[in-house]
Amino acid sequence: MDELDQLVPDVFARDCASRPVLEHVAGRWAILALAALREGTFRFNALRRRVDGVSEKMLAQTLQTLERDGFVHRRAEPTIPPKVEYSLTPLGEETADKLADLIEFVEARLPDVLAARQAYDEARAAHA
Amino acid sequence: MDELDQLVPDVFARDCASRPVLEHVAGRWAILALAALREGTFRFNALRRRVDGVSEKMLAQTLQTLERDGFVHRRAEPTIPPKVEYSLTPLGEETADKLADLIEFVEARLPDVLAARQAYDEARAAHA
Repeated sequence: MDELDQLVPDVFARDCASRPVLEHVAGRWAILALAALREGTFRFNALRRRVDGVSEKMLAQTLQTLERDGFVHRRAEPTIPPKVEYSLTPLGEETADKLADLIEFVEARLPDVLAARQAYDEARAAHA
Repeated sequence: MDELDQLVPDVFARDCASRPVLEHVAGRWAILALAALREGTFRFNALRRRVDGVSEKMLAQTLQTLERDGFVHRRAEPTIPPKVEYSLTPLGEETADKLADLIEFVEARLPDVLAARQAYDEARAAHA
């Protein structure tokens, strides 16, 4: 890779800084958290209920990574107990729109995927 | 969840079959493999070079999962040695278009992410 190449982010290059960012937003829980936050501001526990199945630890890690990368805004009110709210930044909104597009597509095409799987497994069984 | 809900795929529900499918296409190596295959048909080793950094084992697993789900077509010619080629199915093409859109966005906005990280780390250091 010469110097000029390094000026243009390329996720296909193993050391490009864009690759971990892609992994941060496309990660298992990040996709769901970002897509959920399109619905509005969430407190931590409400978001945890929305992203059904995520552990407290994984959601906290995911949100911190997304906050550090500038996709999520964390707002803590200095009350007792502290009230902490999460929302999308403008960058996060654009990202979440693209993820929601992917999610809707996967949900809509689930019957095709299940049919493909059945055909694959039957072909394997026939050759076994 | 009542019976009617189960008829409509919802990735936010932990047991919905759409959730693992989303994870299959948005997985670390799957995103890159699907996006690479938009460029055309690849033999295994050529695809492995394109998806810089992937191990032989991880790429093989990724491609098998994507083939079973109907996103990737595997074609083996009965030559010696066997010539195996991978390409996108129509379903895979649509998926890969959405992933490429996400990749291009992340690459384009990398400077914003790096700036956000720097601001985050500086704010943390100031409070430490």
